[in-house]
Amino acid sequence: MSKSAGIIVIGNEILSGKTRDENSPYLVRELRGLGVDVRKISVIPDERDLISREVLEFSNSYDYVFTTGGVGPTHDDLTMDGIAGAFGRRMYRDPDLEATLRYHYAQELVDGNLRMANIPEGARLVGGKGMWFPVVAVENVYIFPGVPEILQRKFERIKESFREAPFYLRELYLKADEGQIAGILHHVLADFPELLLGSYPYFDNPVYSIKLTLESKDPEYLERAHDMLIIELAKIQLTPIQGN
Amino acid sequence: MSKSAGIIVIGNEILSGKTRDENSPYLVRELRGLGVDVRKISVIPDERDLISREVLEFSNSYDYVFTTGGVGPTHDDLTMDGIAGAFGRRMYRDPDLEATLRYHYAQELVDGNLRMANIPEGARLVGGKGMWFPVVAVENVYIFPGVPEILQRKFERIKESFREAPFYLRELYLKADEGQIAGILHHVLADFPELLLGSYPYFDNPVYSIKLTLESKDPEYLERAHDMLIIELAKIQLTPIQGN
Repeated sequence: MSKSAGIIVIGNEILSGKTRDENSPYLVRELRGLGVDVRKISVIPDERDLISREVLEFSNSYDYVFTTGGVGPTHDDLTMDGIAGAFGRRMYRDPDLEATLRYHYAQELVDGNLRMANIPEGARLVGGKGMWFPVVAVENVYIFPGVPEILQRKFERIKESFREAPFYLRELYLKADEGQIAGILHHVLADFPELLLGSYPYFDNPVYSIKLTLESKDPEYLERAHDMLIIELAKIQLTPIQGN
Repeated sequence: MSKSAGIIVIGNEILSGKTRDENSPYLVRELRGLGVDVRKISVIPDERDLISREVLEFSNSYDYVFTTGGVGPTHDDLTMDGIAGAFGRRMYRDPDLEATLRYHYAQELVDGNLRMANIPEGARLVGGKGMWFPVVAVENVYIFPGVPEILQRKFERIKESFREAPFYLRELYLKADEGQIAGILHHVLADFPELLLGSYPYFDNPVYSIKLTLESKDPEYLERAHDMLIIELAKIQLTPIQGN
């Protein structure tokens, strides 16, 4: 079984359409590449109780949880409080983080900055060596900022710890109507119930009108399913236009 | 009070990073423009029971629910089944939809196509006049396809029925550190608790480093909050670089 993951995007700016979420598309691609199966993405407002509830539910449901956003020094940065609430922990000021902040801001430091050293009790600092600010993790929840460049830099640093067996993928492009092939897809899935089979229509492409994706962590199983699909399609005079 | 909305994006292709969700960014912008407050976005897999659970929870929590994806004719199109399950309804073949499909496909029609006429009992067909395929709605849940062009064409058709009083927005750009202004933002919110106040750091812009957004449905309240903020910022020698 793959490890599972959920992503919680925290930020009113996304729900109100002011900012586009760049972080969940990045994380799903990266996690897929690592062989981790992302099962759910939630986008929720900067509200402490909603954050607590969502984090607790995700933490109980998935192997890994990744949060993005809400970790700065201002009033709308409630992620740490929300995560502390999820696990019934108190917040405390971490001396290592405080020292890092004092070093970084030096003369410029104001009280507001130090708020970023407040984390839930029992939190772990992950991937700290050489990073000016480590990833804070509580239980199976990894806490990331909303700024994409910083999130990506931090994730790069710790991603290898999540690596699993990879997913193998094959794609087929067809000129057909989905209705025509629905029966064949059912048929293939009956024989290959573990296959991850996707069918996606395209309405604006002159060359093909359906993309089929076949995935499995077992490459040999994938090839056999792929072969069966080609044979079944040939029976109704359909040949893939391209594929890999 | 604003009307609230939730968006459920249904599709393994998004969770596995093969396709990027273009629909929730479109819908949040449109709904914000209509004065509707989007409270949550979920991205979930093409699995019937998960769809049922999410739809029921959203339907109980928000005034409007919009689903995208999973409405085609193939095995992974389970949205209608999932929504029927959420409300304990059976599926039936709608004769009007069937007639539309038969007319559209004519000689090309195969059984798989007709699956798209299967909808939950008691569903309403909204905005049907002049559309080759209307929006299907069950209770407060509006069901949209995953293909962005078709979703947008359908949404345009029915959007005026969701219009509320608008949100008014002002933005301020500052060259400062968020920690410096955190106290001021708290202060303004203490006097203007209904203000929607966002603070967003930028790390790669040479001109400004923070964007503040102020929003309210009451334009006069918004102006008073904005004035107070300008005065408070001036007290620490900060003047907005630009704003509107």
